Amino acid sequence: MAVYTDITNEELSLFLNDYDVGQLLSYRGIAEGVENSNFMVHTSTGNYILTLYEKRVDSNDLPFFLGLKEHLSTNGFSCPMPIKRMDGGMLGELAGRPAAMVSFLEGVWIRRPTPLHCRAVGATLAHLHSTAQGFELTRRNSLTVSDWRPLWERCLSSEGNIDTGLTKLVAPLLNDLEKNWPTELPSGVIHADAFPDNVFFIGDDLSGIIDFYFACNDFLAYDLAVCLNAWCFERDHAFNLTKGTALIAGYQSVRQLDEAERAALPTLAVGAALRFMLTRLYDWVNTPVGSLVVKKDPEEYVRKLRFHRGVNHASEYGLR
Amino acid sequence: MAVYTDITNEELSLFLNDYDVGQLLSYRGIAEGVENSNFMVHTSTGNYILTLYEKRVDSNDLPFFLGLKEHLSTNGFSCPMPIKRMDGGMLGELAGRPAAMVSFLEGVWIRRPTPLHCRAVGATLAHLHSTAQGFELTRRNSLTVSDWRPLWERCLSSEGNIDTGLTKLVAPLLNDLEKNWPTELPSGVIHADAFPDNVFFIGDDLSGIIDFYFACNDFLAYDLAVCLNAWCFERDHAFNLTKGTALIAGYQSVRQLDEAERAALPTLAVGAALRFMLTRLYDWVNTPVGSLVVKKDPEEYVRKLRFHRGVNHASEYGLR
Repeated sequence: MAVYTDITNEELSLFLNDYDVGQLLSYRGIAEGVENSNFMVHTSTGNYILTLYEKRVDSNDLPFFLGLKEHLSTNGFSCPMPIKRMDGGMLGELAGRPAAMVSFLEGVWIRRPTPLHCRAVGATLAHLHSTAQGFELTRRNSLTVSDWRPLWERCLSSEGNIDTGLTKLVAPLLNDLEKNWPTELPSGVIHADAFPDNVFFIGDDLSGIIDFYFACNDFLAYDLAVCLNAWCFERDHAFNLTKGTALIAGYQSVRQLDEAERAALPTLAVGAALRFMLTRLYDWVNTPVGSLVVKKDPEEYVRKLRFHRGVNHASEYGLR
Repeated sequence: MAVYTDITNEELSLFLNDYDVGQLLSYRGIAEGVENSNFMVHTSTGNYILTLYEKRVDSNDLPFFLGLKEHLSTNGFSCPMPIKRMDGGMLGELAGRPAAMVSFLEGVWIRRPTPLHCRAVGATLAHLHSTAQGFELTRRNSLTVSDWRPLWERCLSSEGNIDTGLTKLVAPLLNDLEKNWPTELPSGVIHADAFPDNVFFIGDDLSGIIDFYFACNDFLAYDLAVCLNAWCFERDHAFNLTKGTALIAGYQSVRQLDEAERAALPTLAVGAALRFMLTRLYDWVNTPVGSLVVKKDPEEYVRKLRFHRGVNHASEYGLR
């Protein structure tokens, strides 16, 4: 549920005066997203999403996020397109917060993805990687291998009880990952959070990707490893090889993985699972009971970690 | 913030199969409304609002609410128009809840109404009263004079502390209202909750009224008394005579108040203020801390009650 900053008709009208978007017809707060406050804005020229950036987003990163979406949209990749003010700027201020408007992207997210959806996601991820190549700004991944041990130690030192079984699982994995994490793989801008709720479909066609607030520069194959975790497990936490095969084949229909990436995929998949387990665990032990923020159970990713630990070769994920 | 039931793409698509509204393009939960869960639904034929009725709405009342909106829209009054299924029905089921779709009404609500807005609301309220005359269903007002004492007694017997100053104010007012409440005034369907957040404007033009979930049969002038309370007080709780004059003049530009209504207006205004004070007080003392529901401070209506207590004649509200 959204952390929801209310805005008045009067302040929104004033804000929109700087844009060439016509007359304000209506707006509604959207009950989604935990990082920012989002509004659907309808004007005489169309539908827009207005985002007010709340504290969890570093405002220094906003030029990267907005610039990336602009670069991708203008180069034919379907994602929300930042709307420029008449003075050319993309970032404004509303209700005391940094604020930006983007075009409204049609589509719904798929709660129960099929292999067809997985294949489409793989291909679109590769398109994103190739389209982003010309984008000049960079952003370090703030949740990569070197960040996981400090995050894990903050979890251990928190008030919440960390299960000893989890400690036995994580400690050796962390050591392995720090030792074996690749250093030389094809890199570029990745989405880093292409979960089903960030990928829209109309009917069976993928209509676009949203929510670039974890986008950063990192190994391209790590993005695929995130999607293996996010798209190819069933509700009982079993890995679905058909979906994995479809995801990777979709990716390779646009961009072939090289030998080093193929060899690294199992390590990247463990790392991706650990990254989401750790941030969920951190939120789990640090979010007060009764808070408006929906807490995601880290257990799902503990189970995925146990699966990845037994994988020896990328073919077990469906790589052909 | 909305009590928010999540619905999946799959179940929404299935639900929409019964309607002639084209292909589902997108939907978003709306972060507004405390009674129901609302979604903006965009299909290839337009924008709609989908409402899932949560427990606070009695499902026996839904035919009245939906039928009223249909009667009003088809007779030229601007409000959300229920969308009929292909079998002619207006009420369906989604995610285990009664559900209905209505047309999307453009407009924004005015946080700081001017006398111009008040005049428009008055005229529109009178239009609503006259347009609803032909509507055949009826619904008793479940929050009228006979309901206030039981509600007050439930507040007194709750865990929360009721201020003794408030008891000294309410007890004699309740006695007076029960003794002096009118019995014979022009009656019909009233909105009963036409607060600023339920009245939409595009620019300076009133575009329509939403949220008919307190609509019922009662004295028409009581609806005007609700609006005097909802539209004509300033943030410092002082009554604004210019706004009151505009509201009443707007109403009378469409429908003249008769002598009995003019005489009863001060009593109706006290009653309306007491009704909102009591429901806010009840929610205040009965809503758990940390609940998602926004609690409205009853104090605002305590101050309005004190103002109304000193009024002797409807001219003090701006009646000419």
